[in-house]
Amino acid sequence: MTRWTLPPDKIPTAWFNVVPHLATPPQPPLHPGTREPVGPDDLAPLFPMALIGQEVSAEPWIDIPGEVLEILRLWRPTPLVRATRLEKELGTPARIYFKDESISPSGSHKTNTAVPQAFYNAQEGITRLTTETGAGQWGTALSFATAQFDMDLKVYMVRASFDQKPYRRIAIETWGGEVVPSPVDDPSHPGSLGSAISDAVRDCVGREDTHYSLGSVLNHVLLHQTVIGIEAKEQLELAGERLPDVVIAPCGGGSNLGGIAFPFVPDAGVRLLAVEPMSCPTLTQGEFGYDFGDVEGLTPLLPMYSLGRGFIPPSIHAGGLRYHGDSPLISQLVRDGRMEAIAYPQGKVFEAAVRFARTEGRIPAPECAHGIRAAIDEALAAKETGEEKVILFNYCGHGFLDLAAYDEYNHGRLPEEQG
Amino acid sequence: MTRWTLPPDKIPTAWFNVVPHLATPPQPPLHPGTREPVGPDDLAPLFPMALIGQEVSAEPWIDIPGEVLEILRLWRPTPLVRATRLEKELGTPARIYFKDESISPSGSHKTNTAVPQAFYNAQEGITRLTTETGAGQWGTALSFATAQFDMDLKVYMVRASFDQKPYRRIAIETWGGEVVPSPVDDPSHPGSLGSAISDAVRDCVGREDTHYSLGSVLNHVLLHQTVIGIEAKEQLELAGERLPDVVIAPCGGGSNLGGIAFPFVPDAGVRLLAVEPMSCPTLTQGEFGYDFGDVEGLTPLLPMYSLGRGFIPPSIHAGGLRYHGDSPLISQLVRDGRMEAIAYPQGKVFEAAVRFARTEGRIPAPECAHGIRAAIDEALAAKETGEEKVILFNYCGHGFLDLAAYDEYNHGRLPEEQG
Repeated sequence: MTRWTLPPDKIPTAWFNVVPHLATPPQPPLHPGTREPVGPDDLAPLFPMALIGQEVSAEPWIDIPGEVLEILRLWRPTPLVRATRLEKELGTPARIYFKDESISPSGSHKTNTAVPQAFYNAQEGITRLTTETGAGQWGTALSFATAQFDMDLKVYMVRASFDQKPYRRIAIETWGGEVVPSPVDDPSHPGSLGSAISDAVRDCVGREDTHYSLGSVLNHVLLHQTVIGIEAKEQLELAGERLPDVVIAPCGGGSNLGGIAFPFVPDAGVRLLAVEPMSCPTLTQGEFGYDFGDVEGLTPLLPMYSLGRGFIPPSIHAGGLRYHGDSPLISQLVRDGRMEAIAYPQGKVFEAAVRFARTEGRIPAPECAHGIRAAIDEALAAKETGEEKVILFNYCGHGFLDLAAYDEYNHGRLPEEQG
Repeated sequence: MTRWTLPPDKIPTAWFNVVPHLATPPQPPLHPGTREPVGPDDLAPLFPMALIGQEVSAEPWIDIPGEVLEILRLWRPTPLVRATRLEKELGTPARIYFKDESISPSGSHKTNTAVPQAFYNAQEGITRLTTETGAGQWGTALSFATAQFDMDLKVYMVRASFDQKPYRRIAIETWGGEVVPSPVDDPSHPGSLGSAISDAVRDCVGREDTHYSLGSVLNHVLLHQTVIGIEAKEQLELAGERLPDVVIAPCGGGSNLGGIAFPFVPDAGVRLLAVEPMSCPTLTQGEFGYDFGDVEGLTPLLPMYSLGRGFIPPSIHAGGLRYHGDSPLISQLVRDGRMEAIAYPQGKVFEAAVRFARTEGRIPAPECAHGIRAAIDEALAAKETGEEKVILFNYCGHGFLDLAAYDEYNHGRLPEEQG
């Protein structure tokens, strides 16, 4: 057998909170004006109380509401797949497993947090959300989720993506969301995630009916993604494995990495590996400290690795990994030495993506392909040593909406790495 | 529970042959020159003997080779889903189920036959295949399959699609296939499926290393698709249903319809419904008789409903349904009154697609949306009569590569139906 499914009634019913398992307790976010730790009241204009509570919770497990489970069951539990055809082609003694998050309605792991975020906001009487999106994976996921709760959605999309990559914009509109290019006040500016966050936050503040929603970085977002790792643990057992030797995922803001890796944090022997693009090397070359989440300095200051909020990464196809900062929880794990990080140039990532497509059949999103690159290198290292290593990576999204990037790679037109 | 998965070891191990269950035995294809029934030797330049044998077989079940099962298990069995959120929105007492074929590597049911076709050809020593593709669903599926057997592939793609819809072309190339626009000899011609078939057949004839591969219409192609209906029957039982009242699928050449419907042919009480576009109404307005499969008259003559091989349907977004003819097996079932057919205009199809996307979360391919339209109308009819009808339709492919069509619909730019 090479694929382990679980029936919908085996979906995890609680999220795994990594906070109690951290060697160093997380430092609080600071208010952008006072530089004092932010309290619930500071965050209330942006987020519902249930999410603010999850943001600071130290409970080891947090129950998933039934209404959320009902929607997650449209595609969860996702399959765990053993990549036997890739293993064979590599000639490795390693056993490579991946968790297939690409089968969600919007095609990535982002839906795992979009649904509970929409739910908790709807429960608090909020009827409209604003958010930002870069390449569009987060915007599509949230548009799917707000459609389930009859909410309005306004998505500020990085203008370069809005102009050049219309497909995810169209998907957002098909689910009923409104999309505008960002920055809204400068039609000649290509935009960035940091500036789109500023636009979305500004639209939300002062409107009673509106909250803001973020697709990565924050503790509650990563919490919602832990269904991935919880399921993977159970499925690895079904596959006859004990624990993986290494858990791998790409890292932009950190949500898909946290989702698959956090449930393995208490398992001391399991290596955890973050993979980032060389052109935006936050964990591998950034500084740990307090920095803003956005360009303008509207958000609280977060304790995280950062390249500086003014850092504009070069245009690469893995738009979801182009963020100057990183999740505080991921940052703390790296700082404490519990998690490793590695950076790859774009060309080596696409080489791995095509190799995966031709063996396992699936064309990954460029973000996702970063994890595949690292998984292949771990498997090749195992070939050198003859070690029967167990590798687990997160197949966090498909590449059907990123095929233009493959066209450049297939025809030798992929720009050289600028990082 | 609203989703029924089966583990990979529950995949069907034999295909269901509908031929023994037909009221009228199928008439043979005729040689294009002599107009005599074609024999195996006539077909040998195009197809491997194993497929020719399946084309004329009267055995009720045909074993699926282990090497084929191993690859199908990358995504099969596919889930059966109950569309409870759509039911609720419609306020219908009907129970609506769909079989989710969109999770295959290339995103549609086409992979179900691409894999065995590549396998049988490879087994006979063939190292290169040629084929045609319209919108590209078939070309992508076959490119995935030939990559699994290390074969070369040349895809003749209808020029209008090649120029305007590059994404599936890129996917074919990513799996290693070569794509050229058709007709090859007239760069100013937009092309059609019929002319692309002519190009692909011409490339194959006379080359020892090359065979031709077709993605629909022929008996062996529909045979390979019956895994859909066999699985659906078993999953409906798991869902506590006896038999569906009606089985629905879109129909272009007939392969996804045959796949889900054939296993229900022996169940007399089950209605079978083919859905076609009003602009290419082969079953609803065509004539039954012998006609060529291609424009030039290179293929054998097939006994089928046809709009005439010279019929060029207007450009619609459901490119996979733009074919002048139809599967002989489907044609015979319609002619014998065992299967019904209905045609819809494009606008009503997209309306259903968006309704489905906003309730069930998934954005269907335009071809696929034809079946959804009919399923919704069956459910609304059940609401009128108060009948607790069980509706099964084939969710044969996702629309991630067809979003440009949704953009036209969302912004009121969809051309009026010309059929």
